[in-house]
Amino acid sequence: MGVSIGELAVRFGCELRGDPGVMVERVATLAAADERSVAFLANPRYRPELAATRAGAVVLDAEAAGVCPAAALVCRNPHATYARIAAILHPLPAGPSGIDPSAVVSAQARVDPGAHVGALSVIGAGAVVGARAFIGPQCLIGEDAVLGEDVRLVARVTVCRGVEIGARALIQPGAVIGADGFGFAQDQGRWIKVPQIGTVRVGADVEIGANTTIDRGAIEDTVIEEGVKLDNLIQIGHNVRVGAHSALAACVGVSGSTTIGRRCMIAGQVGIAGHLTISDDVVITARTGISHSITAPGVYSGHIPHEQAATWRRLVARFKRLESFATRLKALERRPGRACDQEEDDD
Amino acid sequence: MGVSIGELAVRFGCELRGDPGVMVERVATLAAADERSVAFLANPRYRPELAATRAGAVVLDAEAAGVCPAAALVCRNPHATYARIAAILHPLPAGPSGIDPSAVVSAQARVDPGAHVGALSVIGAGAVVGARAFIGPQCLIGEDAVLGEDVRLVARVTVCRGVEIGARALIQPGAVIGADGFGFAQDQGRWIKVPQIGTVRVGADVEIGANTTIDRGAIEDTVIEEGVKLDNLIQIGHNVRVGAHSALAACVGVSGSTTIGRRCMIAGQVGIAGHLTISDDVVITARTGISHSITAPGVYSGHIPHEQAATWRRLVARFKRLESFATRLKALERRPGRACDQEEDDD
Amino acid sequence: MGVSIGELAVRFGCELRGDPGVMVERVATLAAADERSVAFLANPRYRPELAATRAGAVVLDAEAAGVCPAAALVCRNPHATYARIAAILHPLPAGPSGIDPSAVVSAQARVDPGAHVGALSVIGAGAVVGARAFIGPQCLIGEDAVLGEDVRLVARVTVCRGVEIGARALIQPGAVIGADGFGFAQDQGRWIKVPQIGTVRVGADVEIGANTTIDRGAIEDTVIEEGVKLDNLIQIGHNVRVGAHSALAACVGVSGSTTIGRRCMIAGQVGIAGHLTISDDVVITARTGISHSITAPGVYSGHIPHEQAATWRRLVARFKRLESFATRLKALERRPGRACDQEEDDD
Repeated sequence: MGVSIGELAVRFGCELRGDPGVMVERVATLAAADERSVAFLANPRYRPELAATRAGAVVLDAEAAGVCPAAALVCRNPHATYARIAAILHPLPAGPSGIDPSAVVSAQARVDPGAHVGALSVIGAGAVVGARAFIGPQCLIGEDAVLGEDVRLVARVTVCRGVEIGARALIQPGAVIGADGFGFAQDQGRWIKVPQIGTVRVGADVEIGANTTIDRGAIEDTVIEEGVKLDNLIQIGHNVRVGAHSALAACVGVSGSTTIGRRCMIAGQVGIAGHLTISDDVVITARTGISHSITAPGVYSGHIPHEQAATWRRLVARFKRLESFATRLKALERRPGRACDQEEDDD
Repeated sequence: MGVSIGELAVRFGCELRGDPGVMVERVATLAAADERSVAFLANPRYRPELAATRAGAVVLDAEAAGVCPAAALVCRNPHATYARIAAILHPLPAGPSGIDPSAVVSAQARVDPGAHVGALSVIGAGAVVGARAFIGPQCLIGEDAVLGEDVRLVARVTVCRGVEIGARALIQPGAVIGADGFGFAQDQGRWIKVPQIGTVRVGADVEIGANTTIDRGAIEDTVIEEGVKLDNLIQIGHNVRVGAHSALAACVGVSGSTTIGRRCMIAGQVGIAGHLTISDDVVITARTGISHSITAPGVYSGHIPHEQAATWRRLVARFKRLESFATRLKALERRPGRACDQEEDDD
Repeated sequence: MGVSIGELAVRFGCELRGDPGVMVERVATLAAADERSVAFLANPRYRPELAATRAGAVVLDAEAAGVCPAAALVCRNPHATYARIAAILHPLPAGPSGIDPSAVVSAQARVDPGAHVGALSVIGAGAVVGARAFIGPQCLIGEDAVLGEDVRLVARVTVCRGVEIGARALIQPGAVIGADGFGFAQDQGRWIKVPQIGTVRVGADVEIGANTTIDRGAIEDTVIEEGVKLDNLIQIGHNVRVGAHSALAACVGVSGSTTIGRRCMIAGQVGIAGHLTISDDVVITARTGISHSITAPGVYSGHIPHEQAATWRRLVARFKRLESFATRLKALERRPGRACDQEEDDD
């Protein structure tokens, strides 16, 4: 079994340096690869491991190929080519077409005969499941939800009523798409629930991580555009729109009614307040809090790195005295008899 | 079908300006509403949309009613009145009374005949499910758990053994109520699990968001008082008490044994350390870390907003030199020959 | 029923001061205990409650035992001894051996006859479940996953295909072990999924909290070593290694390929960037962001405590002017005619 590297070279447009008949069966790291493995080199951090690799072939760029001890699959973007080769060698588990006898599927649901519905999944009335969709075990597809072609719900995914999931979307276990948004009106010290009557529309080729939550809209819809990648434990509030091909890392929280542009990259534990607009092509570094809109592409930060605790305590004490610092600095600047070389008003 | 706005005015105590016979079927935004829709205006941000709305009726206050082009349902609190009208026009899905044949219900459980138990839910021995409760699909009600009247578990909610849920509580998918608290004793470099033998008591009219976790008490109970609203992905540690009518936004973490007062509002990604007391009527803004108790009502903050990354890096570098700043400032103040107009001891 | 305190003293190596025949049935706090309860005193915070306790016996150290009004179980580590006694008096619920008829277990799975498989759980082909394992209701054990002896999955745990769980591991509801890591290659503005072909290996005696997510490795494995304790809503990225006996509190995020040492303690809402190394015996206080490796044991911090909002706003304004402060401070130091008692270069 396996695939010849000649076939891989043709299929993915690589220049092959080596024997096209070499057969490979799996991917591996440069360090762990054997002769039946394809490795790759994209991050210069791993360059030192190239010389000693025993891989059957290595995916790399032309510059690194010169010193590759194995057959080389040379391409401009080794990481992307590796990803495509890995998908061939390690296909996702397939399920048989049809509905597992333990699943509970409404007679009013429309499940494509080529779709797979796993054990103990529930599909509500009016739901539609597209061609070749893979519904893993213990999923819940609410009433009137619509899943496109080739959607894959790994397992135990909750798709609430009326939610739309685009073609080829991939959703990890524990994700909840379409729970009620957090909407309440205050009335005499009590919270009155505001019915959340919008839904969630998830575009094609979106990936949603484990235990991530995307709330349905209050009146209109929450929208995740095509190609968006959401990591685990992310919170997307009601009526948020995430622009196409943006990627959000784990533990990000986006408050309600905020719009994030296209091709943004938002690192872990970032928080974005509600009713903001983040423009296209914005990068936000880890743990930054965004409390006002961002109108221009660029990199934005707001995190102070750690110190040893004793050092940090002193810094915090100084920070808490910044008012005093400012006052004293101004007093020094205003001293009589000084050379008046600089004065700046700081109030 | 639908409801006449005359009926809505009577039912919710609005002054009606317009034809009481106008029939409405749904709610909508001012911008998207048609003649069969009710819209509302509460946030001044949307005031410009009022003039052009095509809504059949608008819920608003007396001041805005003067310029409303549609029938007006005039009231003091348009947001709350809107919420009540929306609940009439968009009722939550009901389930038939009785137990779905695919559910697994212990013969030792007591399920009210008027309750709905959805597909593939599990109800353990000794559990009690109150009148008109709605247990959506794939929920788990542990042994001896008690659910009050009109409780609604949307789907896939985990209520662990012995947990009590008050009347009308509404719990979103993925929430876990009553998992073990994080309690360990250290013994010679190993962690010894401390059995978590308390439970969780959730009051009436509480709402709990998707994938939120509320741990059971170590010895005594974790308590969520009536009317509390918890958003998604919140962590409530063991033996926490959240006071009545407080609202916590998404991704908040509350460590063990902390007591939060009544009517508090805690914004997203806030963290509260353990063994603290937060008084009533406290507002904590987003991303604030609370490391000591708060004894007076008020607004508390601790988040520094973002900057462009280059600017931020310079600020962090300066922050990390605050010790040096302080020393230098003091040295300047102590220079001989200066006018001794101000000195403050900063050590 | 119950246990005599004489038996407890013998079993756990305590010195008994009091009647060995006193029978106890449960544990309780010092304040709430009655004559059938064992209480304990470890935290000096609760010392004032000792004099008035009505406990049948109290677990405490020799120093406190002198003023104990009840029978005393004297030991060096009262918290650990209490934990062990509580585990005797409050054993975890047991399930009958065998597979619930509603569970869906592959004919190709190997389930030890002494294991318990709860209602509506799913066990995939090739999976192995060890002796005395407890699989609560609605769990999912993916294909080829391996669960050791005495593993306990409380309920609704997702163990993805190929994941290994060590003996006696305890996993709370909603945890997802082995979802895909967040791996994508960028190609012409699109994200290409990198197949995640590693798995997760969880060591013996690990505890994993509710709704925590641990991603499978990209090529090699994610590893949680023996004795690690993970609280709720934690994110562990792909290819992370958490060293033995480390404890991570709720809402911590660890990015991919980071290695955490042994016996570390990481408090709530900490974030750790990817590709870092944290040495053994590191303590990280709450809400700290770690953006570079830590090479020495010690305590590390990075959180600024809250203030009243008005005070905080002033501090933030001053912080944002730190560049100006630095410039002005240097200008003052360079003024002509001053006593040149100190100069420090700050650029």
